Amino acid sequence: MPDPRHDIPTPAVRRLSLYLRQLEALQTQNVLTVSSLTLGQSLGLTDAQVRKDLAYFGQFGRPGVGYQVEPLIRQLREILGTDRISPTLLVGAGNIGLALARFQGFEPKGFRLVAVFDVDPKKIGRRIGELTVQSMEEMPRVVREMNIKLGIMSVPAEASQQVAEQLVAAGVRGILNFAPASLDVPPGVSVRSVDVAAEMEQLSFQANLFER
Amino acid sequence: MPDPRHDIPTPAVRRLSLYLRQLEALQTQNVLTVSSLTLGQSLGLTDAQVRKDLAYFGQFGRPGVGYQVEPLIRQLREILGTDRISPTLLVGAGNIGLALARFQGFEPKGFRLVAVFDVDPKKIGRRIGELTVQSMEEMPRVVREMNIKLGIMSVPAEASQQVAEQLVAAGVRGILNFAPASLDVPPGVSVRSVDVAAEMEQLSFQANLFER
Repeated sequence: MPDPRHDIPTPAVRRLSLYLRQLEALQTQNVLTVSSLTLGQSLGLTDAQVRKDLAYFGQFGRPGVGYQVEPLIRQLREILGTDRISPTLLVGAGNIGLALARFQGFEPKGFRLVAVFDVDPKKIGRRIGELTVQSMEEMPRVVREMNIKLGIMSVPAEASQQVAEQLVAAGVRGILNFAPASLDVPPGVSVRSVDVAAEMEQLSFQANLFER
Repeated sequence: MPDPRHDIPTPAVRRLSLYLRQLEALQTQNVLTVSSLTLGQSLGLTDAQVRKDLAYFGQFGRPGVGYQVEPLIRQLREILGTDRISPTLLVGAGNIGLALARFQGFEPKGFRLVAVFDVDPKKIGRRIGELTVQSMEEMPRVVREMNIKLGIMSVPAEASQQVAEQLVAAGVRGILNFAPASLDVPPGVSVRSVDVAAEMEQLSFQANLFER
């Protein structure tokens, strides 16, 4: 039987992360239950949308009671695959790469950087926190041995397609791309892109609009 | 007369950044002209889409010749407001904040971090590169004196709405938000959000789907 989760609309999956953030915030405030109305409100979503999104994944809420915060957090993490720590690699030990390697926000969300790779001989062997930058030639072996499915790329745009292909060939199934370039990957592999400079450009455009 | 740029669809503005990246890459390869077909290809866009997007902003290409790379780069930067350096502030000198403050990729794109703020007395006074972390109480004065319109926020989710309101009150018109929370801002102020953990969660979901 095909996994029905393949048919869930991407925006609904996307909103799971938002719900999870809200629920985690409620948990730190020791809130035990939350209504779909309250959960949606701070995200600008209707209660109907919240109920519809969560219903794709199971029966979580109870009418008149709402959702239990702690069990729902656990279930959302299970759905997202972040109930356990996923070993994650990083390619590119430049500025963004170093910042990401030092970023302590991954582990609480279920991701651990376990390996850093670069092609630059000057960077290979360098220590970043608890990791040592390794040659890209080591990458396929490390991916296999550590069963790594997720990779973060912070490489120059012109190298990004080639690096993506190397990662996919090694077995990586999800790539977070910080390179300012779009990647062409086969079906079954996901790419999400973060382009900080492009985001700033959009803000600049809007800010200038309202100046005129 | 109202600025006609207000009516340009957001996705077209968004793609300007992508065109700009491609053109900058072509320029480093000393390419002088490019067709709409070639420009679109690497982005997965049709030549018609490229021509339509750019036509919103003016007459750039010539039939049979295509676009001249260097003049088009200059014009796109002018449209985006990145032909000059925009002074930009940062609120939040935590992990992401420090990484951003050290990130050297802003200036080539037209942005310069000119001030860093935090509320934590332990962080105020600390040096980050060429900047010193200042108290949030200094923020309104600095924004006024340096005519800052753009701000980057890397603060805890629960503080983000309040910080956004302080920035808006001080005169900031564009906010890049790294806090995992949505912000409510008045018309005329733009927000764009980067949530690295949420992006990773989406990849995790997809990678797990194809494991099953």
